[in-house]
Amino acid sequence: MTKPLRIAVAGLGTVGAGTLRLLDQNAVAIAARSGRGVSVSAVCARDKTRDRGVDLSSYRWFDDPVAMAREADADVVVELIGGAEGTALETVEAALSEGRSVVTANKALLAHHGTALARLAEDRGCTIAYEAAVAGGIPIIKGLREGLAGNRISRVYGILNGTCNYILTQMSAAGGGANAGPAQDFADVLADAQRLGYAEADPSFDVDGVDTAHKLAILTALAFGCEVDFDSVYVEGIRNVSALDVAYAEELGYCIKLLGVAQQVNGAVEQRVHPCMVRKGRPIASVDGVFNAVVADGDFVDTTMYEGRGAGAGPTASAVVADLIDLARGMAPPVFGIASTQLRQLPTLPMERHACAYYLRLLVLDKPGVIADVSAVLRDADISMESMLQRGRAEGEGEPVPVIIMTHETSEASMQAALARIAALDATLEPPQLIRIVDF
Amino acid sequence: MTKPLRIAVAGLGTVGAGTLRLLDQNAVAIAARSGRGVSVSAVCARDKTRDRGVDLSSYRWFDDPVAMAREADADVVVELIGGAEGTALETVEAALSEGRSVVTANKALLAHHGTALARLAEDRGCTIAYEAAVAGGIPIIKGLREGLAGNRISRVYGILNGTCNYILTQMSAAGGGANAGPAQDFADVLADAQRLGYAEADPSFDVDGVDTAHKLAILTALAFGCEVDFDSVYVEGIRNVSALDVAYAEELGYCIKLLGVAQQVNGAVEQRVHPCMVRKGRPIASVDGVFNAVVADGDFVDTTMYEGRGAGAGPTASAVVADLIDLARGMAPPVFGIASTQLRQLPTLPMERHACAYYLRLLVLDKPGVIADVSAVLRDADISMESMLQRGRAEGEGEPVPVIIMTHETSEASMQAALARIAALDATLEPPQLIRIVDF
Repeated sequence: MTKPLRIAVAGLGTVGAGTLRLLDQNAVAIAARSGRGVSVSAVCARDKTRDRGVDLSSYRWFDDPVAMAREADADVVVELIGGAEGTALETVEAALSEGRSVVTANKALLAHHGTALARLAEDRGCTIAYEAAVAGGIPIIKGLREGLAGNRISRVYGILNGTCNYILTQMSAAGGGANAGPAQDFADVLADAQRLGYAEADPSFDVDGVDTAHKLAILTALAFGCEVDFDSVYVEGIRNVSALDVAYAEELGYCIKLLGVAQQVNGAVEQRVHPCMVRKGRPIASVDGVFNAVVADGDFVDTTMYEGRGAGAGPTASAVVADLIDLARGMAPPVFGIASTQLRQLPTLPMERHACAYYLRLLVLDKPGVIADVSAVLRDADISMESMLQRGRAEGEGEPVPVIIMTHETSEASMQAALARIAALDATLEPPQLIRIVDF
Repeated sequence: MTKPLRIAVAGLGTVGAGTLRLLDQNAVAIAARSGRGVSVSAVCARDKTRDRGVDLSSYRWFDDPVAMAREADADVVVELIGGAEGTALETVEAALSEGRSVVTANKALLAHHGTALARLAEDRGCTIAYEAAVAGGIPIIKGLREGLAGNRISRVYGILNGTCNYILTQMSAAGGGANAGPAQDFADVLADAQRLGYAEADPSFDVDGVDTAHKLAILTALAFGCEVDFDSVYVEGIRNVSALDVAYAEELGYCIKLLGVAQQVNGAVEQRVHPCMVRKGRPIASVDGVFNAVVADGDFVDTTMYEGRGAGAGPTASAVVADLIDLARGMAPPVFGIASTQLRQLPTLPMERHACAYYLRLLVLDKPGVIADVSAVLRDADISMESMLQRGRAEGEGEPVPVIIMTHETSEASMQAALARIAALDATLEPPQLIRIVDF
């Protein structure tokens, strides 16, 4: 048997400690599957004294991850520090420059520097493995890079952030079903999620869609063989989704999910993250709580879906160790599925040219002529209404009342122009809400 | 660039022709992803003259696949002949003996000879790749063998046969929902499925559960690191599922799925294929029609699910080509995830010792004392009833009436003993129906 793959682990938070625990607990199986075992030679974190529930005494300790990446007696550096710049980036660059492969869970890093880092790795004859960076324990990177490698992928989309999916599920769980109370508002559910540890104290990366966009940018590069282009992702989070929207969605046969969607449209690439109305009964509509799911459509395989836990110590460690076993086996396919020099620069389809059906929620004064005014704006913008719903009259004339409009497919540009005109009507009391309806 | 991977394809049915079409249509992407391309050097089928919609003129033709496996100018032999014995087995043995890796979609072959063939491959320094043998285009072999390689897998189960899932879905689709007619019986739906090409003229491999059992035996070996043990699979098909069962399942909040389930129970392995009552709302319950799905539970990753088309030219060719790209990249992990010499012989948990809750459907004479007799039999066998349903009285006393019983968890041995006694009651008019209820 070859000698074990030696690794140095930078970052001993939840995922780092979980990875050490997994490597220890399943050492026999890992040795059998990798043919040689995986042995930790060095570790590095900010605080040496903190109790992480794992015995670090047999590993060389480094205070500086960059020094560790350069000097440790290791074949592979596992980067679990996080963040797109600074220490994480320096650590990964140092490791790759030394010809050491990197295993990372860092989606922000890859979203911002993926192409450059892939080129650096290839120059130095090593690789970057990042199964843990997208959708936690779900082996979707492997699925796209290898499992579906025979296909041209036309679209990949998914629920990529467990915090958002948990919040949306809770907002709706409170509102749906026979024994449920009214739908809950975003802020209340977020506060609960923070208390339960499902959301960070500063939740903006999650709820504003940035984390989903990081992951989507990685999936896009892998699926379409193009450079990672995070800056072209249209990003809209879930802060504006209200209890009312959740309740109306329920009533109309939809649920609301934050999706990341990448698709090829006539040779251009569309990447977008925003709340979506998904028809109930579609496989992705039933992916609830902290679970993630990714759907990939290939020209030969048709539609495939992958579901599992998108975060947490266990699932993420599972992904990190899968990458380590691959490396131990000598399996190192190109970082984004093809040689990084061959990654294409594809044109971006701007969001204005996106087309779909829309859900609109207006708050208007309940008085004669308001609906006629709104309808006229839509007609002038060539937007065709599929249905309109004005539920519950106001207390008296001239009081506020919500109006729900479902449109047929139209372009984002037309819709935004129409919304600006609707917002400017005297009877409109707050900025109109818009949620895009997906047909998959 | 290294020279292309040369392959010889044995068998040019739907999947073989689909594979050639995929290799041609996506040749550029495949070359980029494999780093060297995949080139067909020889093909073999029974009838050279048949029009398969693909141009075979540039490939060397063989009439005898075994000769081709020995003599073709090929690195890899793709076996798409099918069948557990005979030509397929001889072709694979010939290829491996020559040190040529094999890519196959043949589940029967691997279910019966998987361990021996894996050992032969390892002896000759080559491998067997079989993504296409289980669940069509879903990369579940790769998922288990590599993606979840850090985990100890406690259970793997799934909907592995599209024909059965299509039939069960149709039986229920007819019966479920607001606008639906009454549930349809097995025989009628099977006839429709045969007309539509979703079921074979001789459907027994599919509807009797044998095909599912073949695939399950492969998944079991891969998940648990044990020898392939097809003979230990308990197999029961869907012929006895009636329209009544489907309608009652619907009413009770379940759907009926043919599942293959493998789990480790105190160091023993349980492998079983039978119709299951699955609670609606569970992810696998919504996998309908010809779709397949596999669920794997790992100690770190928790539950993951994989869904897609389980058969057909496109999805199966997608899996074949994924294996070819892996081989072109030089990626050849052990056939069943660990060296074949290390595959364990694990004890089998016999079906008598399986424990679950049960659905029973009896047809009894509607007369006083019958229910008391049935209840007494169950009580004597220590089986606790969760509910009983006697829907619709008979026309008159002494007429046949169906009785539905849901039990709490009990052992298969107790249940079979009780059923034998119930079947022997004077008032029992036909053999009782039993469907196992799964708690996942």
